[in-house]
Amino acid sequence: MKGIHTGDKITVYARPLARLIEQLQRLPGIGPKTAQRLALHVIKRSGDEVQDLAQALINAKKQVGLCRECFHLSADPICEICSNPKRDIKTLCIVADSRDVIALEKTREYKGKYHVLGGVMSPIDGVGAEQLNIEALVRRVSQQQPQEVIVAISPSMEGETTTLYLGQLLKPFTKVTRIAFGLPVGGDLEYADEVTLVKALEGRQEFDSI
Amino acid sequence: MKGIHTGDKITVYARPLARLIEQLQRLPGIGPKTAQRLALHVIKRSGDEVQDLAQALINAKKQVGLCRECFHLSADPICEICSNPKRDIKTLCIVADSRDVIALEKTREYKGKYHVLGGVMSPIDGVGAEQLNIEALVRRVSQQQPQEVIVAISPSMEGETTTLYLGQLLKPFTKVTRIAFGLPVGGDLEYADEVTLVKALEGRQEFDSI
Repeated sequence: MKGIHTGDKITVYARPLARLIEQLQRLPGIGPKTAQRLALHVIKRSGDEVQDLAQALINAKKQVGLCRECFHLSADPICEICSNPKRDIKTLCIVADSRDVIALEKTREYKGKYHVLGGVMSPIDGVGAEQLNIEALVRRVSQQQPQEVIVAISPSMEGETTTLYLGQLLKPFTKVTRIAFGLPVGGDLEYADEVTLVKALEGRQEFDSI
Repeated sequence: MKGIHTGDKITVYARPLARLIEQLQRLPGIGPKTAQRLALHVIKRSGDEVQDLAQALINAKKQVGLCRECFHLSADPICEICSNPKRDIKTLCIVADSRDVIALEKTREYKGKYHVLGGVMSPIDGVGAEQLNIEALVRRVSQQQPQEVIVAISPSMEGETTTLYLGQLLKPFTKVTRIAFGLPVGGDLEYADEVTLVKALEGRQEFDSI
């Protein structure tokens, strides 16, 4: 049989299964093998469980939008963080994406409010200040007059540009700070990349201030 | 703020998003990080795309069952392989799972038919011959009288038991063979595990027969 191809298309999967695998492969980080494994798992689950998963997908898409105040993902017009009276309105943290809000919230340390830009400035991709939620940010800062604005944007080239731009833009209104970059806690100095080491050296602090 | 916990449950995700993440985490190999990434991706997709994915899940579960003849996954009562007149009915390949049929079909080399056992014998888990599609297999072999039955089951302890059991069971009806085990093609002898090397030695062939 070796080397002989009849030219027939070999149908490996039943059609509804093939369609599901194709759909799953469109998700980020899901390759053909993972998509097949997930699809075969789905078929073995009960009808109710599959219905629940399908409904959760539809509901998440339908019900989750952006908070009118801070642009974080929210099921309500104003998100739970913005409408929580216990949050400190004197501190405002600017992040690029809703994912960053989630990461910071998980630390349970930050009690202020957020502003989600919806990306970082990237002239090559045609993303300037107008494409980000910066106009709303300036309005918010001038109206709410926070005592401190913390810029928490990853230090990529685009991130740095955005951070410096925001610093210049908001300095007239309030104190603007940025989060520290350096050696990760538990990280080994030997294995840190050079840029991180430079940042760690630049951000060194006197013993008195610790 | 360090160490102070107000006791409030921190709501990191909007509720429909949390529910979707919870649902996605029930899938095999999907941890909290991946579930979050997938969920945030879904929200950014168009409503139609999400609807398509949800529908594909429901359809795959509803429409795909087992072939009455070979127990492979199928959208029809008889699967495409069993109903294909071009397939060689003189060869029958026994596999543990539908996944194995898919793997063998992808080689495009095997043109015979299949029989899916639905697992391997495992007394510890209460899986004996009665829990597998073995009665139907014997009926099929005695009726259809294939010229060769190939047992293609992975050589785990349970797989070996099942293979030997099937060999004894089917020998009275026809010629029974099993697939070869040995060094994977492209594999380095130095890095092969000992069991594989033993199998490779045991399965050695004379130059004449190659």
